Amino acid sequence: MESLQGVNGDSAELEKQLLDLGRRARRASRVLALAPPEQKNRALNAAAKILRARKNDLHEANAQDMAAARGKALGPALLDRLLLDDKRIASMAQSLEDIAALPDPVGRVLETFRRPNGLRIERVSTPLGVIGVIFESRPNVTADAGALCLKAGNAAILRAGSESFFSARLIHACLVEGLRAAGLPEDCIVLIPTRDRAAVGAMLTGLGGAIDVIVPRGGKSLVERVQAEARVPVFAHLEGIVHLYVDAEADLAKAEKILLNSKLRRTGVCGATETLLVDRAGAEKFLAPLVKLLLDARCEVRGDAATQAVDQRVKPASEQDWSTEYLDAIISVKLVDGVEGAIDHVETYGSHHTDGIVTENQATADKFQREVDSAIVIHNASTQFADGGEFGFGAEIGIATGRMHARGPVGVAQLTSFKYVVHGDGQTRA
Amino acid sequence: MESLQGVNGDSAELEKQLLDLGRRARRASRVLALAPPEQKNRALNAAAKILRARKNDLHEANAQDMAAARGKALGPALLDRLLLDDKRIASMAQSLEDIAALPDPVGRVLETFRRPNGLRIERVSTPLGVIGVIFESRPNVTADAGALCLKAGNAAILRAGSESFFSARLIHACLVEGLRAAGLPEDCIVLIPTRDRAAVGAMLTGLGGAIDVIVPRGGKSLVERVQAEARVPVFAHLEGIVHLYVDAEADLAKAEKILLNSKLRRTGVCGATETLLVDRAGAEKFLAPLVKLLLDARCEVRGDAATQAVDQRVKPASEQDWSTEYLDAIISVKLVDGVEGAIDHVETYGSHHTDGIVTENQATADKFQREVDSAIVIHNASTQFADGGEFGFGAEIGIATGRMHARGPVGVAQLTSFKYVVHGDGQTRA
Repeated sequence: MESLQGVNGDSAELEKQLLDLGRRARRASRVLALAPPEQKNRALNAAAKILRARKNDLHEANAQDMAAARGKALGPALLDRLLLDDKRIASMAQSLEDIAALPDPVGRVLETFRRPNGLRIERVSTPLGVIGVIFESRPNVTADAGALCLKAGNAAILRAGSESFFSARLIHACLVEGLRAAGLPEDCIVLIPTRDRAAVGAMLTGLGGAIDVIVPRGGKSLVERVQAEARVPVFAHLEGIVHLYVDAEADLAKAEKILLNSKLRRTGVCGATETLLVDRAGAEKFLAPLVKLLLDARCEVRGDAATQAVDQRVKPASEQDWSTEYLDAIISVKLVDGVEGAIDHVETYGSHHTDGIVTENQATADKFQREVDSAIVIHNASTQFADGGEFGFGAEIGIATGRMHARGPVGVAQLTSFKYVVHGDGQTRA
Repeated sequence: MESLQGVNGDSAELEKQLLDLGRRARRASRVLALAPPEQKNRALNAAAKILRARKNDLHEANAQDMAAARGKALGPALLDRLLLDDKRIASMAQSLEDIAALPDPVGRVLETFRRPNGLRIERVSTPLGVIGVIFESRPNVTADAGALCLKAGNAAILRAGSESFFSARLIHACLVEGLRAAGLPEDCIVLIPTRDRAAVGAMLTGLGGAIDVIVPRGGKSLVERVQAEARVPVFAHLEGIVHLYVDAEADLAKAEKILLNSKLRRTGVCGATETLLVDRAGAEKFLAPLVKLLLDARCEVRGDAATQAVDQRVKPASEQDWSTEYLDAIISVKLVDGVEGAIDHVETYGSHHTDGIVTENQATADKFQREVDSAIVIHNASTQFADGGEFGFGAEIGIATGRMHARGPVGVAQLTSFKYVVHGDGQTRA
């Protein structure tokens, strides 16, 4: 692992070593793709045990990262994300066991059809191949991302944020021990063993065809760079500008409960509502109670003229507010002309991530869910259900707003592709 | 349409006009995505009628293209592909009607699951958005590709080969008349109105975010360029190096019938077998009859030493032969060590398109179909079944060997994405 550390000055040498890592991961992926479920689960459960057993080593490695981060005067939020305490180590190990316990996503028959000539054609799930994961300071992503890829039969090439270098390296070593214990190739989970940022660029070009898909896990600037530069497919979302539309035919109590949870259960998650749209026809009944509810819960409200008229605590919303993902206790509020107006607003300012409607009118809900072109459209429930765990996918590696293959929560099943398996009895084509 | 024809010298102006085309197609795609099936079908059936009615105009436009092509001394194969005769016009119109008759692929519920909290989550198919199709000399692709995209609710941006400029332009005009007759926006099907090759480059970068996926329809050099330069996802295959493995436990009569059809039914299609692998354990029984069968059918055979020993008409195979797609009456033949050897050969030299096995041993077939990582793996039937029509998909826009989203034959259903539609009753997240 140290081999790449001294070579930061020599970019040709780095490139060569990265390409070699890619080739090794590709080779391992072929073995892993055919590994029986039990063998993959054995590796995950063994790694969980090893993580628990090496708790003290993990604290030590993490202390090195924390000291370096404090030396660079990084902010408290970043320091918190970087920290590995006993509870986080336990939960990281538990999450490996949870992933092991999920149903195996490879080899499932997704569809079967028979042709008039007697051919039977099955569509069967297969791994994607090699998945590159680029993440920032949270060291536990090393375990989570590696485990999700492994469960789906994919080799993983992980690039940890430079702040979590030592923690990620030790977590990775535990995963590799797990692989070894299960008789799987060590290269099933590869960690890029350098802090050199050139490694990210090399991954984005696919490491010479070694990487099939890239998953960025981190802030907007990381995702933006990955989406702009990647030459391989990307599973990601740039932002979640999530809307909740309260229709004139909504149930007020339900709307209040859903709004409060959608905005404030957690404000920093991508499924948190950022804009409340209220039906003009229901303004008298809904606008004041909903806005006051938010204000009383210490949520800043930025509204259009009608909303400002409701309460003097409301601040004016600017055009910029309609396309801002606050990820904070701030919401923008606007009156719209019915479900049509809501759909127009969502399609104009939204990010095609998650949007919700509250109404007792089924036809209105149908229209909204049909016409809003987002990965997740929710009727009469909190927008914060936008989550792989809540969808029953087990853990998720992220939420995708692309249209190719994975859209919405990306769990283990979404880390697979498929092939057609055709069963014949001597059929030839006319 | 003439507007872009005089601007070939001004690339900034061309770029601007292409971006405008992209924006118009994007806008039209939103209307089309929500159009009811009957409206889309009305447009397709109207266009079919119009194509038939304008037969003489089509002949005239095609004559212009043919004259220009003859002037450039293009080869007879290209001239044949370029020609639009009565039969081809009739079949082009028929194919629009066939596509109209397919089940609508949009809005299908692909999966439903219920969560313990009562949430009902549906995965529903949606259009992909805007599809860019780049094709070569066959003018009928204008109609086929435009119609497939339309049926799946996608706007299409078509770039016809420069040789078929006038034919494609008139076919496109008929499609637009069909759109108009059905009350759909004309920009649902856009034809790039210039022969300037810079237009292809602009499409490959996505026309400023207007294009969601590119489909190249043409020879290897076109696909190669598209795969290398495209900044948006591509549905394509570069080549079909298709293998047929005859196992020691195969039925000889079945193997003969399947081999002959796999290799020689049509030699120029991507599902045509290019390499025959014979199980060493069955060599005595199978090798001579199979090789002689091919030779007697005027197929050139290039073989390894064992194959050459069978018949003096066999030529020696070079290393290059194992990775050559002949698309001609030529086949390479090799002995391998059982199904393991066959899988190794396929994974080393194959192109992950289509591969077949002939055996009466179900366990051997299972192993081959599980371990060969190709989009289509066929047991006891001709490899030439690799085709959207034969799969029952109706028409196909191509066959994809990528792993993202569309793999194997790409018909109308494969031109859609999906979204999650969540039905609640006031659920909030804990």
